[in-house]
Amino acid sequence: MPKLNPLPLRDVRIDDPFWTGRIETARKTSIDYMWRALNDEVEGVPPSRCLQNFRIACGQEEGEFYGYRFQDSDLYKWLEAVAYSLETCPDAALEARAEEAIALIEGAQQENGYLNNNVTLRGLRPWGDVMTGHEMYCAGHLMEAAVAYKKATGKDNLLGVACRFADHIDSVFGPEECKMHGYPGHQEIELGLYKLYRVTGEERYLKLAKYLLDTRGHQPYYYDLESEQRAALGEPPVKYFRDHGPEPYSYQQAHAPVREQAHAVGHAVREVYMLSGMVDVGDACDDTLMEAAQRLYDDIEGTQMYVTGGIGSMGDGEAFSFPYDLPNDRMYNETCASIGLMMLCQRLHGATGEAGYLDTLERALYNTVLAGVSMDGTGFFYVNPMEVWPERSQKRHDLRDVKEVRQGWYGCACCPPNVLRTLLGLGQYIYAAGDDRVDIGLYINSSATLTLGGGEVTLRQRGDYLRQGKASITVEQGSGTFTLGLRAPQWCHGVNLTINGRQMAATVAGGFITLKRDWQAGDTVEVAFDVSPAFVRCDDRVPFNAGKVALTRGPLVYCVEQCDNGAKLWNLLVNPTGAVSETALPDSLGLATGLTASGARQSLEGAPLYTEDRPALAETALRYVPYYCWGNREKGEMMVWVRER
Amino acid sequence: MPKLNPLPLRDVRIDDPFWTGRIETARKTSIDYMWRALNDEVEGVPPSRCLQNFRIACGQEEGEFYGYRFQDSDLYKWLEAVAYSLETCPDAALEARAEEAIALIEGAQQENGYLNNNVTLRGLRPWGDVMTGHEMYCAGHLMEAAVAYKKATGKDNLLGVACRFADHIDSVFGPEECKMHGYPGHQEIELGLYKLYRVTGEERYLKLAKYLLDTRGHQPYYYDLESEQRAALGEPPVKYFRDHGPEPYSYQQAHAPVREQAHAVGHAVREVYMLSGMVDVGDACDDTLMEAAQRLYDDIEGTQMYVTGGIGSMGDGEAFSFPYDLPNDRMYNETCASIGLMMLCQRLHGATGEAGYLDTLERALYNTVLAGVSMDGTGFFYVNPMEVWPERSQKRHDLRDVKEVRQGWYGCACCPPNVLRTLLGLGQYIYAAGDDRVDIGLYINSSATLTLGGGEVTLRQRGDYLRQGKASITVEQGSGTFTLGLRAPQWCHGVNLTINGRQMAATVAGGFITLKRDWQAGDTVEVAFDVSPAFVRCDDRVPFNAGKVALTRGPLVYCVEQCDNGAKLWNLLVNPTGAVSETALPDSLGLATGLTASGARQSLEGAPLYTEDRPALAETALRYVPYYCWGNREKGEMMVWVRER
Repeated sequence: MPKLNPLPLRDVRIDDPFWTGRIETARKTSIDYMWRALNDEVEGVPPSRCLQNFRIACGQEEGEFYGYRFQDSDLYKWLEAVAYSLETCPDAALEARAEEAIALIEGAQQENGYLNNNVTLRGLRPWGDVMTGHEMYCAGHLMEAAVAYKKATGKDNLLGVACRFADHIDSVFGPEECKMHGYPGHQEIELGLYKLYRVTGEERYLKLAKYLLDTRGHQPYYYDLESEQRAALGEPPVKYFRDHGPEPYSYQQAHAPVREQAHAVGHAVREVYMLSGMVDVGDACDDTLMEAAQRLYDDIEGTQMYVTGGIGSMGDGEAFSFPYDLPNDRMYNETCASIGLMMLCQRLHGATGEAGYLDTLERALYNTVLAGVSMDGTGFFYVNPMEVWPERSQKRHDLRDVKEVRQGWYGCACCPPNVLRTLLGLGQYIYAAGDDRVDIGLYINSSATLTLGGGEVTLRQRGDYLRQGKASITVEQGSGTFTLGLRAPQWCHGVNLTINGRQMAATVAGGFITLKRDWQAGDTVEVAFDVSPAFVRCDDRVPFNAGKVALTRGPLVYCVEQCDNGAKLWNLLVNPTGAVSETALPDSLGLATGLTASGARQSLEGAPLYTEDRPALAETALRYVPYYCWGNREKGEMMVWVRER
Repeated sequence: MPKLNPLPLRDVRIDDPFWTGRIETARKTSIDYMWRALNDEVEGVPPSRCLQNFRIACGQEEGEFYGYRFQDSDLYKWLEAVAYSLETCPDAALEARAEEAIALIEGAQQENGYLNNNVTLRGLRPWGDVMTGHEMYCAGHLMEAAVAYKKATGKDNLLGVACRFADHIDSVFGPEECKMHGYPGHQEIELGLYKLYRVTGEERYLKLAKYLLDTRGHQPYYYDLESEQRAALGEPPVKYFRDHGPEPYSYQQAHAPVREQAHAVGHAVREVYMLSGMVDVGDACDDTLMEAAQRLYDDIEGTQMYVTGGIGSMGDGEAFSFPYDLPNDRMYNETCASIGLMMLCQRLHGATGEAGYLDTLERALYNTVLAGVSMDGTGFFYVNPMEVWPERSQKRHDLRDVKEVRQGWYGCACCPPNVLRTLLGLGQYIYAAGDDRVDIGLYINSSATLTLGGGEVTLRQRGDYLRQGKASITVEQGSGTFTLGLRAPQWCHGVNLTINGRQMAATVAGGFITLKRDWQAGDTVEVAFDVSPAFVRCDDRVPFNAGKVALTRGPLVYCVEQCDNGAKLWNLLVNPTGAVSETALPDSLGLATGLTASGARQSLEGAPLYTEDRPALAETALRYVPYYCWGNREKGEMMVWVRER
């Protein structure tokens, strides 16, 4: 058991000026929108056929499997999101729809517990291609959905499907000689098995998760053996990204045993999902897994993460490239990867109690993850760039993935339901509690009921964190001796603390203001972090940001957009020592503030392409908006890193 | 006939401190090296099999065709280079080797004149795929080689092969209903046919070249009809780059009739080869072709050309992307494309007498083309980047084409023999003459014998243009009334002129100092251009160079390299108003000068990846070398555009 655990979603009520609107949009618009997308009822977007595949598998329709081999997982993630919604906001009609989906899933499950429409409908050999087949990946998402649905509704139907599948997998894979010794090409099942273990208490699931991590990357490579077997059976070869990196199978983080991996490499989502599973399993039963996960996290956070909490600097393979290679115009920064980073950070904080992980969680959430969905809940980014010149995205083939507008759906639609489950499950990220300690991970207005020091306590969080840096935490009900850990964010320049109105010294140690007392109902802690705007710079080993600054305020990274600043944003220079003033954002962009900085615009047009002329310089104000809301107005240029005057 | 024509190579003798060494390396080292590469006798480089293919076609060996469909053209370009060498420097052994190659070519020619090893050895249908088959492309290079060999040796053997092939093509393609109405996917035959027309006087060749240009890009697209025919015959479909741009076939510049094309698009080499052909044919018989070629040249030079004369800003398709999209780290700037740009500029100057074309020719030659070959004549760049970070080239899949060291050979080896024929044919670019006018295109020490004003004149050029901006032109023999056009380069800040030692007003009009007189043997014109180093900036529509400068001196663009300036070149700032001093280059880098500028280096290491810290600034000198010689010492970073302090 981790030191600190998320609270059950039902015990956290969010009532936040910034977040409630986004969550309600997810609940009221996106859930239905995605159901229709999965049902191919949304016009003008790439087909999904996800539910059609299930109907075919159930014998309700005739037809062939369509889509990616992981197409099933879109429904599972949608169901997980729906479960989170039901847990916090019961809705009979929505639950009926979930039951409809679950019936399809039950109907698609094979007698032996196996469940994968791509394999079944295409008549493939189950587990014949664990490197690229995504059977275990889909299984993991099924397990996560099942656990969430059980918690939300108390029903065992989907959980039963998941356990039967898990039991089947456990009967097929494992260290015993009679079993297969493979491991998934796309990690995710480790997380699902761990959740299943936690909710059922079944140790076999934990053991299987550990086995899949332990056996990963040992030589001879299982994937090579698998290939040989496929060849022997006359099955077509599978070469997908085998040699993406210098070592074979680094794309899948299977180039070396997980404890020996030195850098975060390969497909970014797989990396952070794997690390999340390593923390889950490691914290439960193996310190060496924990240590390896922490080391690889440090590599990401210290050398391979964008200022927005985006990861994956290379479109080819949706992958990490190498330390300090963080180009602004081409990268992946997949929404799913930053969600995975949040998942990893939550687990690392839970296991260690260290604050720095929460800072990264917050960075990823408020910037890349939130940018991944439009304000209206029906548009989604897959790739989250640091700068966009729309003409390039349209005309350069090597920038085809870098969309300048959020898309209604994707052929590979992993991100939309992933961001949906994250928004609707946000309550799980706000608090983390142990027996006599509760940490505030995110400052989001909410109330939480939990057991601390043996008694039930209700905490109420209020304030205006984003705009004023303020949060107050009141013990609304209950009392007891426990520790309240207030995260002091890395970005904060100073902090003011009062308890019951009395000014206190705010001692920050290890990223927390740690308050241990005998708390009484009515006690109120008020904390005010300095959220002055700040210009940040980048380590000088990163070529792309030399001479540039990014404007931040609190957890928000800001950007300039063409609709506020005119075209050719690259000609802007910002004065990092000048005053930065707050401006109101249009209501449509959410309850944060805009910022205006002083600077200048260079111009040098009309000369030949190359000239000895010097550019003219005109004073100008630079209007910034939070990164999360870029591209919600007009299509145009966007830029995070601006040249420093 | 163009207004001004290149002189026959044999009539130009180069004796230049900068160039002679490079040309002699090409003659003494590269010719033999490439012969061995074409024969697969060079270790450690990709196979060529070019000559093996010919031997198989001749029945001398058993085997299958190997390589790209245009593999034959590597030998043709090598032969053209050899012919240029023989014309200026007869060499019986080399001629014997050429004869050996020509015998193979003769042996591979079919009875009807058809000649293409890829098609013949693979048993394909001749002319069944003119879009991607490269049959006409290879034919064009054969014709160019044949004309060069005829001029060099007076022999008709290779010319006979070329004429028989041309006659065959003429019997197959043309406006007549009984003929095929196709045109090549890769332009080049237009140039070859024009040369054949000029040397044989056969009007059919000019007519055919014009037909191929005239019919290009009309709807319905021939390539669509061809595809339908292939389908009807059960042949595999050909989809190669059909939809590379927004319009079908823009990759091949066949999206619209050539006279209606608005921008330079698609594969850069094809574009400039096509435009060269349009100038050849247009100047001979069609003003509208000329005008279109000039317009498209203007688009390239004004909006799509790198400061080094590189073109093609997109690796995907080796292609143009769109105006002002000139990224420094990823582009193509293929050596062949800049050679094609030189060919185009030479023709445009010949047709119009305008100096601007020669400025671009010089820019391409002294920078991209010359960078394309190592100082020792055995290493070659295909892609010529503006900046290189070796770790990126090695580790980022999307930068695989951007090599940080010149390669010994390429699987697609178009560039090495192309740069060879350019260096050995350099004498053709120095002078351009009409009946009573001679223009100095390039200031390269040489002597030239030509007919001017009805009499034979020998001009002798001496000076130190690169280092001192000086050239003297002496009428060494002969006399007559004619016009001497001295190009006043765009980059020059001032010019001093003397005639027979007397100071004269140097009036520059249309880019020329035009001196019309009754010239006598012994007359000497001395011209001194101001070659002070200059920092150039880029039009502000180019995002990548905002706030940056490139250092130039005369025609040379300079760069900084890691071996002179340490790593992390992006942290350097140069002071564009500070003094720039000349330094000696190591002998191994050729007879230009290095330059040293003042500036500073920023550093900001050791902090977290993102920080509010300000970088430290240390004064430093920036050591520049000419771009043409980068990468000839140690492997390391290189950068042309440096941030301005």
